[in-house]
Formats: sequence, structure tokens, C-alpha cells
Amino acid sequence: MPTDARHRLLASISGLVHARGYNAVGVEEICRRAGVKKGSFYHFFRSKRALMVAALEQCWQETEATLVGAALAADVPPRRRVERLFDLAAAAEEDAKSRSGHVLGCPFGNLAAEISVTDEPMRRKIDDVFARFAQAIERTLREAVAAGELSDDTDPPSAARALVAYFEGVRLLARTHNDPSLVRTLGRHALSR
Amino acid sequence: MPTDARHRLLASISGLVHARGYNAVGVEEICRRAGVKKGSFYHFFRSKRALMVAALEQCWQETEATLVGAALAADVPPRRRVERLFDLAAAAEEDAKSRSGHVLGCPFGNLAAEISVTDEPMRRKIDDVFARFAQAIERTLREAVAAGELSDDTDPPSAARALVAYFEGVRLLARTHNDPSLVRTLGRHALSR
Repeated sequence: MPTDARHRLLASISGLVHARGYNAVGVEEICRRAGVKKGSFYHFFRSKRALMVAALEQCWQETEATLVGAALAADVPPRRRVERLFDLAAAAEEDAKSRSGHVLGCPFGNLAAEISVTDEPMRRKIDDVFARFAQAIERTLREAVAAGELSDDTDPPSAARALVAYFEGVRLLARTHNDPSLVRTLGRHALSR
Repeated sequence: MPTDARHRLLASISGLVHARGYNAVGVEEICRRAGVKKGSFYHFFRSKRALMVAALEQCWQETEATLVGAALAADVPPRRRVERLFDLAAAAEEDAKSRSGHVLGCPFGNLAAEISVTDEPMRRKIDDVFARFAQAIERTLREAVAAGELSDDTDPPSAARALVAYFEGVRLLARTHNDPSLVRTLGRHALSR
């Protein structure tokens, strides 16, 4: 079942790196957790980096569906959708902490902090993920302006980028404080402080 | 000159880890850059982690003097001081990029993203640095409320924590985009979006 092995390698590196970082994890451990022989690894991916870049794309697809898409769905007013982004992230961190004892933070932000200077392909990949995240938020902010929930002089592209920065910073502080409730309480400051 | 060697080890690990991360850097390389023999290393520090914790304290002392203290000095109105925090960080990143080709981001945030789950003493140290940073901002926000620059219903402790999160997120996005100008432009959204 080659496809299944590929999928298990993607899940394995994502889980290991999210907790411990990219440089602390080796191909051997990734294979062991995936239940895949090391020889097979190089049948699917030419390097640990190539696996990580593929895992980042898959992680974004999942994040877009379960976190970003769910939070920003149009069933509630636009401002409430932005709050819901933080609430859903808080719920995920509460779950992570109850399972592992640790708040994990954003997988993209953590990795960007670690490798942006040393790995150009991964840096570009995460930069691209942040841009797609900002585009999704920008659409919500345009609706908030149209609905009169945000001031007319809001610049949606730069306000969306600022929100991505705030979201990343909040998740980093929660990881550093090991406290999921920070994501929820600081989320209340997302559109006004 | 033992004191000088100790100082060079602190500077060496700070510089190497800021660019490349904690797990990518070993004691041998830290010693080589510092011009200190590996045998002497353990005369000053019992481990790489002990050196890093000492380097974090020194880095905060320097950051407090040159960035936080300089930005939040009372020679301009309180809101302007907060903007100046981002402007000074932008200038430091412009300098880093012109020297090395890379925006480096915040040394505390980068390290927290990498090691918070795996290293409890370092996590606690950085958590403590963020708390001291928030206290400095909180004093400025209290003055902004007193001066009528911020609304009376501002809660300075939580607004200060939100600003630390925003500052960390902005620096992370600038590192990921490798663009120092982001720190300046997103800094304009620090107290209102």
C-alpha cells in the first residue's frame, strides 16, 4: 500500500515537527513513527525537506478546511467570524494540552521561526501559506466594511496581514506560556485593542 | 582573560542561534566562533542550554536598553512611543538584511517557537522575558489612557499582552517574508486596525 505509506510519512513528520521542531527530528524517527522502512522513504521523497514541504501543503489544506474555512463561514456576521478563528484555535490548543501536556502553537509559524534563514524552499512555502491565509481574512474584512462593522477607511489587504501577524503572535505567546486560554482571551483584541 | 571568553561565548551563541535556530548549532561551532577552546566551555557553562539561558538574560538586558527603553522613553506622546517600538525594530531588521541578506525576527520569539515544548527551563525564561516586555508596554498604555490617547475602557494589562503578541507576530511575518519594511508598515496597525 504505497499511497498509505506516503500518507503516514506526511502525518509522521507533521506531528513530530509540530512539537519538537524540524532540526530535532531525523528521517529514521519519522520512518519509525510512520511504520515505513527507511529504504522506502526515498522512494516517496528525495529528502526530509521535500517531505516537509509536501506536509506543509497538506497541513494548509486541512487548516483551510477545519479552521479557516469553518471560522470564516458566512453563517454569522463578519466580525464574529474573526473571533471564531481564535476560538477554534483555542479549542485545538486545549485539546493538544489535554492530550500531551503542551500547547503547540501554529505549525507554520513555529517552522518559519526556526528555518526561514536557513531553508529558502521552506521559507517560501510558509510565506505562501501566510499569503493564502491573509486572502481568506481579507474577504471577511471586506464584508465587515460593507456591513458597517468596520470603518470605511479600513484597508482590507493590510488589515488582513495585520490579523495574520496577530494570530501568529497570539499562538506563539500561548505556546510560550503553555496556556491555551490566552488564544481565546487575546482573540477578543483581534479587531480592536 | 576568562571573563572575556565568557562574554564571547554569550555573543557567539546569540548570533548563531538567532539566524539558524538552537538545534542547528553545536557547542563546537559556538566555541570556534568565540575563539574559546571546547575544554574551557565547560569551565564557564555546564551545558549548551545553560549558556543559552544566560545569553537570553543578556539579550533581554540589551533589548531593554536599546529597543524597549529607547522606544518607550517619555520624550514623545505615549502612542508615538509604541509606533517607535516598531520603527526601531524595523531599522534593526533593515541593518540585519543589509549585512546578511536576511531579516532575523525576534530572538526570543524564534527560540520560543522552536523549543517551548522540549525545553522547560528555556520556555520559562522566554515566558519571563515576554512578561517583562508586557510590563514596560503596560506603563506606556496607562499613560496613553491618562493622556486621552486611548479610550478609558482600555484594560492596560491585557492590551499590553496583545501588543507583545502583535509585535512578535509582525517580526515573524517579516522574517518569513524576508522583508524589513513589513515591521514598519504593520507597526502602523499596532494600536488600531
